Formats: sequence, C-alpha cells, structure tokens
Amino acid sequence: MILPFTFASIPHIVFGAGSIAKIGELSARFGDSVLLITGGGSLKRAGKLDEITAALHAGGVGYAVLSVAGEPSPDLVDSAVAEFKNEKIDAVVAVGGGSVMDFGKAVSAMLVVGKTDGLSVTEFLEGVGTRMHDGTKVPLIAVPTTSGTGSEATKNAVLSRIGADGFKKSIRHDNFVPNVALIDPELTLSCPAEVTAACGMDALTQLLESYFSTKANPMTDALVLSGIRAVGKSLIAVSTKSPRNLSARTSMAYGAVVSGITLANAGLGLVHGIASVIGGSFDIPHGAACANIMGPAMKKTLEALKEGVPGADEERSKVRWRFARAGALLAGQESVRESDTDEYSRLLIETIYRWTELLDIPRLGTYGMKGRDIERLASLSENKNHPVPISREGIEQILRERL
Amino acid sequence: MILPFTFASIPHIVFGAGSIAKIGELSARFGDSVLLITGGGSLKRAGKLDEITAALHAGGVGYAVLSVAGEPSPDLVDSAVAEFKNEKIDAVVAVGGGSVMDFGKAVSAMLVVGKTDGLSVTEFLEGVGTRMHDGTKVPLIAVPTTSGTGSEATKNAVLSRIGADGFKKSIRHDNFVPNVALIDPELTLSCPAEVTAACGMDALTQLLESYFSTKANPMTDALVLSGIRAVGKSLIAVSTKSPRNLSARTSMAYGAVVSGITLANAGLGLVHGIASVIGGSFDIPHGAACANIMGPAMKKTLEALKEGVPGADEERSKVRWRFARAGALLAGQESVRESDTDEYSRLLIETIYRWTELLDIPRLGTYGMKGRDIERLASLSENKNHPVPISREGIEQILRERL
Repeated sequence: MILPFTFASIPHIVFGAGSIAKIGELSARFGDSVLLITGGGSLKRAGKLDEITAALHAGGVGYAVLSVAGEPSPDLVDSAVAEFKNEKIDAVVAVGGGSVMDFGKAVSAMLVVGKTDGLSVTEFLEGVGTRMHDGTKVPLIAVPTTSGTGSEATKNAVLSRIGADGFKKSIRHDNFVPNVALIDPELTLSCPAEVTAACGMDALTQLLESYFSTKANPMTDALVLSGIRAVGKSLIAVSTKSPRNLSARTSMAYGAVVSGITLANAGLGLVHGIASVIGGSFDIPHGAACANIMGPAMKKTLEALKEGVPGADEERSKVRWRFARAGALLAGQESVRESDTDEYSRLLIETIYRWTELLDIPRLGTYGMKGRDIERLASLSENKNHPVPISREGIEQILRERL
Repeated sequence: MILPFTFASIPHIVFGAGSIAKIGELSARFGDSVLLITGGGSLKRAGKLDEITAALHAGGVGYAVLSVAGEPSPDLVDSAVAEFKNEKIDAVVAVGGGSVMDFGKAVSAMLVVGKTDGLSVTEFLEGVGTRMHDGTKVPLIAVPTTSGTGSEATKNAVLSRIGADGFKKSIRHDNFVPNVALIDPELTLSCPAEVTAACGMDALTQLLESYFSTKANPMTDALVLSGIRAVGKSLIAVSTKSPRNLSARTSMAYGAVVSGITLANAGLGLVHGIASVIGGSFDIPHGAACANIMGPAMKKTLEALKEGVPGADEERSKVRWRFARAGALLAGQESVRESDTDEYSRLLIETIYRWTELLDIPRLGTYGMKGRDIERLASLSENKNHPVPISREGIEQILRERL
C-alpha cells in the first residue's frame, strides 16, 4: 500500500543544451532588473558570462553583477544584502555551482526580510538561529554550472562557517525552491575533472539516500531510478576520458537536478549526516566529503540490513532489494530477479568503491582530518531518514576507513 | 541523448488516506476565508462535507459553499464569479471530480480578472476567445473525489458547451496548476462503479498518451511508469469486486495525480484529440469517451508504427518498445526483453480491449452518436503530440468501431 506522503513544489524546469539563451526572456517574466550572482572567473573564462549578459540585454533586463568565491558564509550573505537592499531587484539570477546557487538562494530570501528589519541570515539557520522565516523572497532563477548538488531544485541553502566552532547549516523553506531552474549542460563542459567527479558523486549520494530513505515515496522512487540510470552511464566518462561529451554531460545534468528534487522530498541519510559535520570542520568540497563517506557508509548500512531484527525483517528486505535495484541500474541493467538480491547489493557497494578509486577522490586526511578528530565528528553526525540505525562506533569506523 | 524539455511546476501534493483532516490547516496558509466548491450531493451523502467544514472551522477558516452539478460551462463560471467577486476570497477549495476541480480552477482564474473588468471566461478559452490570461489567480486547493482526470495537477480547466455548435475547450496557464493538491483516497471509496471505471480509463489514457507523446521526457517517463504500475494492479479491482479496498483506491488515486502531472508536461495525443470533440457534441462523461477511443486508437497507432518509413524507423521502433513496456507493466511485469516487443505491444492492446469489456463501458451510440456524425467528428479531431500521423480515414474507422 502507498503510504501517506507530501511532495513539495518543484521549480519550473527549462532543460537542454543551449537553453542559457532563454535567460533574458525568463528573467523578464519577473521584471526588468535582476541581481546576477556568479562564482569565480570560470564562467567569464569560458565566454559564457558575455552570452548571459547579452541575453539579459536582449530581454530588456538590466542587471548588477555580484561575484562570490568559495563556500558561502552567513557574513557574505549579510554583506550582499546590505549592499543591494535599497536597489530595485525583481529577481536573483544565480549562475554557478552549488555554493553560488545556495548563496543566491539565501540572498533572495534575505533581501525581503533584510529590507524590513536588517536581521542577519544567521538568525534563520537551523540549529544556529532561533527565528522562523516566513518564506517571502525575491524570485530566484538558478542556473547550475556543475552537475552535483541539485540546489537548482531544493528548498534549502547551506551556509558554512569553518573552524573549531564551525558549522554547515541550512536556511530552509518550501518557498525557497527556485522559481525557475535553467539547466544548460553546455555550461558544464569546461568543469574541471576533480570538480566534475566530486559533484557527480554528490548527486549519486543524494539519489541513493533518497531511494533508501524512510521518507521515500513512489514519486521520488520513480525519479530516483531515472536519475541513477543517467548517472550510471555518464559519470565516469565525463570525469575521465570524455569531459567534452555533451550527451554524457546532459545525462549528468539530468541526474543532478533529479537528485535535488528527490532529496527535497525524501530527505538525506547517514552519508550527508556525516559529510556535513566534516564540512563544518574542514575546508573540503561537499562532493568530496560525500564521495569519501558513501562507500563505507553504504557497506555498513547493508551489513546492518542483513542483521535479523524481529518485526523489521520485511522492511529490511525491501531496502536490501532497493540496494540490488540501484546496483543493477548503475551497471546499466534494468531489472533484477529477487533471487539475485545479494549479488546486486554487493555490486552496488563494489561500484561505489571502484568509482571512488577511479575518480581519484582525495582521502579525508588530505583535507586535514586527523585520527583524533574522529570521535568528535562521529558524536556530531546525524542519522535522519536512514533505513537502519548505525551506532556511534560504526560511524567512527566509516570515518577511520577514509582517513 | 536527453533532448531539451521543460517541466512546469507541480502543486504541493499532500497525499494519503485521512489527509482531508488537513484541509483547515492548508487553507489557513492562504487566509481566513475560502470559497468551498463542491459537486452534487455525493460528498454530503458520504458524510464527508461535514468533515471538511469541521476541519475548516478548526483551522479558523470561514467559508461560503457553492455547489455545481454536471460538466462546467462558461456561463456557470461567469455567474459564480459575478456572485462572489465582491466577497473576500483568500482561496478557492474545489472538492469533487474533474468537472468540479476544473470549475474551481476557472473560477480561481476569473475572480481576479473578473474583479477588474468583468470579462467572460469565454474570452480566454483556447480556440474560442481571443484574450490571453496573465496567470494571476486566487490560490486554489484541489481535492479530487474520483481518480481520473488528474485536474488536481494540471494547468488547464476544460469548459464545455454542448450541442451542434458545442465545444470542449480549455482556459490554460502555467500558473493555473493548483497551489495544493490534497489527495485523500478515502474520498473515492463511495465512488460508483461506472464512474470509477470511466475515470480510471481516463487516467490510463493520460498515462499512455504522455508516454507515447513526442514531448515525453525522462521525468514524465519515470512518473508515467510508476502510474501505469499503480493503475495496472488496481483499476479492475476497484471498479468491480473491491470498491471498498483502500489500498487499491490509494493506488488509483496515485495513478490519477501522476497522469495529471505527465499530461501537463508531455501533452496528450490522438485519444484526447478525438474524445474532446465527442465531448463537445454529446453529453458523455469524458472518461467514457476516452475509454471508448483508447483501444481502437492504440491499435491503429501500433499498426502505423509498424509501417516502414524511411528515416523514421529508429524513432518508431523506440515507441513500439514503449508499447511493450506499458503492456508488460500493466500486466504486473517489470521488464521486457527487446525480442518480446511484438508480443507485449499486442498485450497492451489486448488488455485495453479486455478492460473496456470488463468495465462495461457503454458504446458511443449509447450517448447519441450516429453513423452520420462520424465524418464531421473525424474532421474536427486533433492529432497533436502523437508519435505517428493517423489519417482522417483512420480516425473514422476508430469512431465507427465504437459506434
């Protein structure tokens, strides 16, 4: 029986190679003046920034440009809001990776609130601030230049403060789902190999965690499987030998936006519960943290699923079957016989480990994590929506394996 | 390669048995005063109207009730707008079958326009009026009591004028997608067998047409397959021996909302192109028109797909494979070998014919269609988004088969 579920709104999606040419016309739906937020210089170097401003101009839309680099911090959001709160901004257009889109999402949410009472975004961060946001925002158009976080379809923006008292926390509201997600795979063609790999592993993590989540529903399941299929046939290609293969880049862009939709509706599990704690303590790309944790966390989860628990056996065997289904699909195989559940569940784990090697994902120690950090990191990690409980000790083992 | 596509917004979906209890809290998000639109007396007889008004009351929401019966006409919409345009309406809550939800959708669209300039909805109907609606509307909560049209997730409202100069045309805008779709399968438990059957066949048509549409994309494909799976295992049960089976009713409610999402994003094909013309000429439930046409139209389509056309062969064999995949899934089988394409394509057609018999769908003649009407109806029928062209003569044969 289909259990009760809710499914939040999704953005109006405009997907396809060359669709960036529509940015002017899409922006003009909201008004004649936008705040264009971009990342470092990669967009400019690829010649795409000129294309975007020309399209805005052609659509009769004026713009101010704001460039941000690195992970978005609450301070950066606050100063952008201070800078632009008295300007006429009909929409925020955020063009970049997950960090840039999250930054744009937070700015679009704070331009309205900030205007009226000058509060810091920190006051609205989950687990940090104490205020609830009412969801009012300046319209947001999100344009990803990597295939990874799926921020173009999610309702939260992750902001970070790095260090011993660091955090990686979200400002979140159903209304923060971007109004438009404009996804042009051509924008990802020049994405460097290590970014492509880490972002792709983030998307894969999000798809798998949504599929195994206790909050999964038939709509997220259907979308997840189409996303895994797309990632399975393209991630290794775009990250290694065929970075300029537009068909494969298009598949990855599809997998990424779908991973954003499913995570927004089914939630994330243990991998993100650990990865976000690592990200709050060390200067590590989010995708690299996920890629490090995914293999050992999925292996540990599969082991736990195999342990007999009275009353939960049927539920657990359903999740094991999902492991098998995902493993087969990642290998390009559409169906699995129930008798092959074990074989294909193992294949999923093996594939994740093999890809982590193939993609040269740097180990956690590379980013400064030491053995002495493990106990603290494990104690802070969350295990929400995960299909089985994993003990503190288990989380420590996961972290140690990737030191 | 994934081809360019757009995907419109979908409503915030609240799905599950008993979820009608949330109608007060969901309405209160929009204000404290709603226009509650219901159909004939069936909701009241089932005791559900009291439950709804009690929930509104508990949420602190006042309401005016408007009951409508039969297919919604432009005149009915205009008089409702005239009656309520000076009232404070924070949201329209439409509880009923496709007709009631479409009526509510049109009223929510016209309450705003009507307020300012008193125009008739007819002026905005595609192919009838000449004005474009700008999408501004009073927020809409759609609550289906049948599993069929998927109007709770679509962006158009179909209005009808019946007779020789009759029509069945839509007012349509991306913004007309309901803000909330509240889907409580318990509301469908008392739906009569013939309505259940016709509505279910409508949902199935919508799923199949979206799947075979030239505008299908990986997101609609993924959702369609989950919908066909749900309809396949429940339509015959709820329409014949097990009308009170909540699990099967839940599956049908899922299939219906998904069919609305996919039709809104992939469009409809030949079956609806013919059925809407029939509906404009005769007083026939929309689902019954679809059910009559679906079998012969799909058979004719499969025949046309098998004809060799230089340059189109690969595309056609892909669609044939989709016929097979749908046929297998409707029979509860998750996968098909490519070598079995013919067998399972035939199975799809056979299943549709068998179900049309099993469900006792009255033939078109029952609703007044005569042999002499066929030529005119065929000449008016549309064939948009359909994977192969079907000749005027072919459409006449389809109609004649179900006279």
